[in-house]
Amino acid sequence: MTEKIAVLGAGSWGSMLAAILNENGHEVQLWTRSATQAAELNQKHTNCAYIQNYTFPETLRASTDLETVLTGATELLFIVPAQATRAVATEVDRLLAKLGQQPALIHGSKGLETTTHLRVSQILAETISPEHRTSISVISGPSHAEGVVKHDPTLVTVASDDFDAAQRFQHLFMNDYFRVYTNSDVIGVEFGGALKNIIALASGALAGLGYGDNARAALMTRGVAEISRLGVSFGANPLTFAGLSGMGDVIVTATSTNSRNYRAGYQLGQGVPLADVVANMGMVIEGIATSQSAYELAQTTGISMPITEAIHAVLAQEETVETAIHHLMTREGQAENG
Amino acid sequence: MTEKIAVLGAGSWGSMLAAILNENGHEVQLWTRSATQAAELNQKHTNCAYIQNYTFPETLRASTDLETVLTGATELLFIVPAQATRAVATEVDRLLAKLGQQPALIHGSKGLETTTHLRVSQILAETISPEHRTSISVISGPSHAEGVVKHDPTLVTVASDDFDAAQRFQHLFMNDYFRVYTNSDVIGVEFGGALKNIIALASGALAGLGYGDNARAALMTRGVAEISRLGVSFGANPLTFAGLSGMGDVIVTATSTNSRNYRAGYQLGQGVPLADVVANMGMVIEGIATSQSAYELAQTTGISMPITEAIHAVLAQEETVETAIHHLMTREGQAENG
Repeated sequence: MTEKIAVLGAGSWGSMLAAILNENGHEVQLWTRSATQAAELNQKHTNCAYIQNYTFPETLRASTDLETVLTGATELLFIVPAQATRAVATEVDRLLAKLGQQPALIHGSKGLETTTHLRVSQILAETISPEHRTSISVISGPSHAEGVVKHDPTLVTVASDDFDAAQRFQHLFMNDYFRVYTNSDVIGVEFGGALKNIIALASGALAGLGYGDNARAALMTRGVAEISRLGVSFGANPLTFAGLSGMGDVIVTATSTNSRNYRAGYQLGQGVPLADVVANMGMVIEGIATSQSAYELAQTTGISMPITEAIHAVLAQEETVETAIHHLMTREGQAENG
Repeated sequence: MTEKIAVLGAGSWGSMLAAILNENGHEVQLWTRSATQAAELNQKHTNCAYIQNYTFPETLRASTDLETVLTGATELLFIVPAQATRAVATEVDRLLAKLGQQPALIHGSKGLETTTHLRVSQILAETISPEHRTSISVISGPSHAEGVVKHDPTLVTVASDDFDAAQRFQHLFMNDYFRVYTNSDVIGVEFGGALKNIIALASGALAGLGYGDNARAALMTRGVAEISRLGVSFGANPLTFAGLSGMGDVIVTATSTNSRNYRAGYQLGQGVPLADVVANMGMVIEGIATSQSAYELAQTTGISMPITEAIHAVLAQEETVETAIHHLMTREGQAENG
């Protein structure tokens, strides 16, 4: 069955997911704020600022007009940065009221709103009236757009409180190079996706300092353990963090030079000052804001997050990476699942 | 407190753990079958066949005489290959009876006995009389000896049914570059350590074929999910597989060219015939025997292990890696924790 799907956000991942849905036979309208980018997508079928060496399907349409994109959509994919979601969703709510539509919502944004510490599905639930939506789902997992371009076998998870909605999106997205699992744990999937960038930043810093495979694997494992502790305190299932949106996404983000958080961490590890790293990257380094949010959540909940605290101290220039690692290594011995 | 510790097995990991214990102030005797290796360790303080660029502490003593090594030992670390453990342990049991000793046992061997599918702690429990031992523990985690040589921060877990024993070994091993967690789940820690080589082999094969980061992260995550399913059917805690001896060890083994299972898989992926890969490596490729054991266990327990089955089919030359991946990717959609 052909669906009419609106995709909001034409960055690398938004445009790639739009392309997958379009390739799978659905009618897809892609929204972007940039008229230049929309024209490039419609005329040249490329999105060069975000994805190199890829020609988009000719049937994929882009537009800067949100109402045009939303009109007739039965599914709505939000894939704008977490910090921009509230503003876009507020406008979407107004337009859906005007259009009299009630689409199924899904998002693929990774992050927490820094001012409220809300997850993206919570922002959507707050801003879009239940009269203008059916279900809310999230898609997440280890999936660099660069890999999907090459049809590298990619596995993701779709989580929703509404199992039928999760299965509906599983069927819409799935094909022979993009495999989708369903999951009922929205909280765990969102926390895993949001907080993995902290680990990516730290992993890059370890590599930049010349530390090796043992330290990286230890960081990733214990990093996921503390993200899991925090998520569980908000109602997540701890097993979710062993899955695609937890450890899986940490692996792809914390071991790949395709990850800008990893690359930013690498520069920090090599001694480049934070301000210069931010300037060098020219794109948002989510791990910086996320580590601030996670640090604040650890403080308010009382959850032990020693790696997050160490990264926070390093970013605040209260500690060097070396002394932070020494402090982590010389803490009192712990139980692994303690 | 200084302990007298016997370490049986002077391969890279056995000799490295012996060195850590010795550096931590304990009296350590290292057993090897090779007189040449014992002489090299005692005179040159090197173990060149296994560890390059490392000088062992001069106080570490090696011997080919098992009785000498065991005499007076209050702790006994087995670190011989899983398939050799039964024979060595049988001889140890005889000597402990003669010596009238009852040490605490720990092992660091990764594998299942191919003939019985027993875990190493089960082999020790069967062959060493309860009169000749106190507790049985296992040490495991993401720890290439090459990293420990450079004092790369390394985290491992010690599991035992006896919490005091786990804490005792935690204190014996722990220092500022080698951090030890305790764990009560012996079954999970042993299954994780034993079966990770299957994933390392598969990860190498993916890389050899030119697949990328998404595919590797997906393989590792879903690989750990099916190892966890098998372990849980034998009584393991599923969370153990998200820990150091599960995902942690998979990360270090499946992403590092230090892993011979990864290197063997890489050659397979590049099209080198299995017999030539085995000949080229010149060392045991544990993942081959382990995938056979895991395949047999999946058959007898009825646990779904699609990746293990695919690797088994590839090693048996019933499928190419490409067709195996296509079959994995085009199976019916699943729930992530289903």
